[in-house]
Amino acid sequence: MKLYYSPGACSLGIHILLEEIGKPYELSLVALKEGAQHGAEYTAVNPKSKVPALDTGDGGPALTEFPAIAAFLAIANPEAGLVPRDALGQARALEAVDYVTGTIHPHAFTRQFRPNVFSLREEDHPAVIEQARANADKFFGVVEKIWRGDTWLLPQGFSIADAALFFVEYWQAKRVGGPLPPKLDAHLKAMLERPAVKRALEQEGLSA
Amino acid sequence: MKLYYSPGACSLGIHILLEEIGKPYELSLVALKEGAQHGAEYTAVNPKSKVPALDTGDGGPALTEFPAIAAFLAIANPEAGLVPRDALGQARALEAVDYVTGTIHPHAFTRQFRPNVFSLREEDHPAVIEQARANADKFFGVVEKIWRGDTWLLPQGFSIADAALFFVEYWQAKRVGGPLPPKLDAHLKAMLERPAVKRALEQEGLSA
Ligand SMILES: N[C@@H](CCC(=O)N[C@@H](CS)C(=O)NCC(=O)O)C(=O)O
Ligand SMILES: N[C@@H](CCC(=O)N[C@@H](CS)C(=O)NCC(=O)O)C(=O)O
Repeated sequence: MKLYYSPGACSLGIHILLEEIGKPYELSLVALKEGAQHGAEYTAVNPKSKVPALDTGDGGPALTEFPAIAAFLAIANPEAGLVPRDALGQARALEAVDYVTGTIHPHAFTRQFRPNVFSLREEDHPAVIEQARANADKFFGVVEKIWRGDTWLLPQGFSIADAALFFVEYWQAKRVGGPLPPKLDAHLKAMLERPAVKRALEQEGLSA
Repeated sequence: MKLYYSPGACSLGIHILLEEIGKPYELSLVALKEGAQHGAEYTAVNPKSKVPALDTGDGGPALTEFPAIAAFLAIANPEAGLVPRDALGQARALEAVDYVTGTIHPHAFTRQFRPNVFSLREEDHPAVIEQARANADKFFGVVEKIWRGDTWLLPQGFSIADAALFFVEYWQAKRVGGPLPPKLDAHLKAMLERPAVKRALEQEGLSA
């Protein structure tokens, strides 16, 4: 098992899941800031030039797409209890993961970190970033409103949904310095107390 | 079971899966063009104002996010054979679904259909649309390259991945009039021959 990651990127969520599972795995750094995702070495691993990617060791191509990697790890390691056992519970976990990766990540954060994806003119970037911050408030507000668990997002307990939510909460609090609604703020703090989260942050050289 | 949909929207992929399963379900129209997704009636169903949403009949809130709904239908209806049975096979199906919903849909099609999401100025729309068409070629090229099945995307046979891929292929061929690489073009034709696809298109008032 080998995870292709970049420090502090969304791959952090998968890194946390690997630490939660606790089986041996390797890390392979893809330096996004230096454009390594576009180099021949990495496009041979993932032609989409994105992290995370997971070499599952089955001899096939690396598995890509955060929700698919998270679901794979959860289903292949039932003893780690990373998703509820029933179909609807699994779907609720995936629903939250997908809201993070398909909506919050691109429209609240990629929009801030890479405004050029959402505008053709540099002079529009401040307005695009402002839009992104308003989106962050709106999207985190939706999660706060549909929260159905206690400490963790799902009533069944800790799941892949928490690992996904963590990376956008972490970006909001530590990278942007933006606000989080009360349940999400408490969730971020609870996540930062988990040994697996501490280990993943430390291995990526990030502060808790 | 009730599907909230809009004719020809990405909800078409879920509609097809319901027809493949063949159990009774209801359809509930959300007229996106008229802005019904933002009305109080629908935001009570889905505060994110998007289709598809599926009322699973469990008394809880409607299930949202295409990949989560597709995974739920597949796992809850194993006799329909909509995903492989093993963890990695299920992940491969989700990987393709997520590439469609998280990358192809927004960056090739939303970018064309609603260029205002990707630019602040109307005079930039033609350039944004051009970018989107280039993205479509690039993304469909990636799918063509990583194709691992025969008629259907996965070597194990028809799956939720095919239903997701279908709606973007259909948009490319019928709505945009753009090209598809050979395997995807053959896939679109094979999909259009499936009775479930024919029924879903007919129910949505769309041509085959
Ligand atoms: N659809 C992908 C998106 C992953 C993604 O956006 N990864 C970012 C890092 S947070 C990336 O690799 N960006 C590099 C680039 O776009 O050049 C997934 O869900 O895994
Ligand atoms: N993340 C959602 C996105 C679904 C989506 O973008 N749906 C479109 C129709 S294809 C929609 O409802 N658009 C209405 C709007 O944005 O106002 C999913 O995967 O289900």
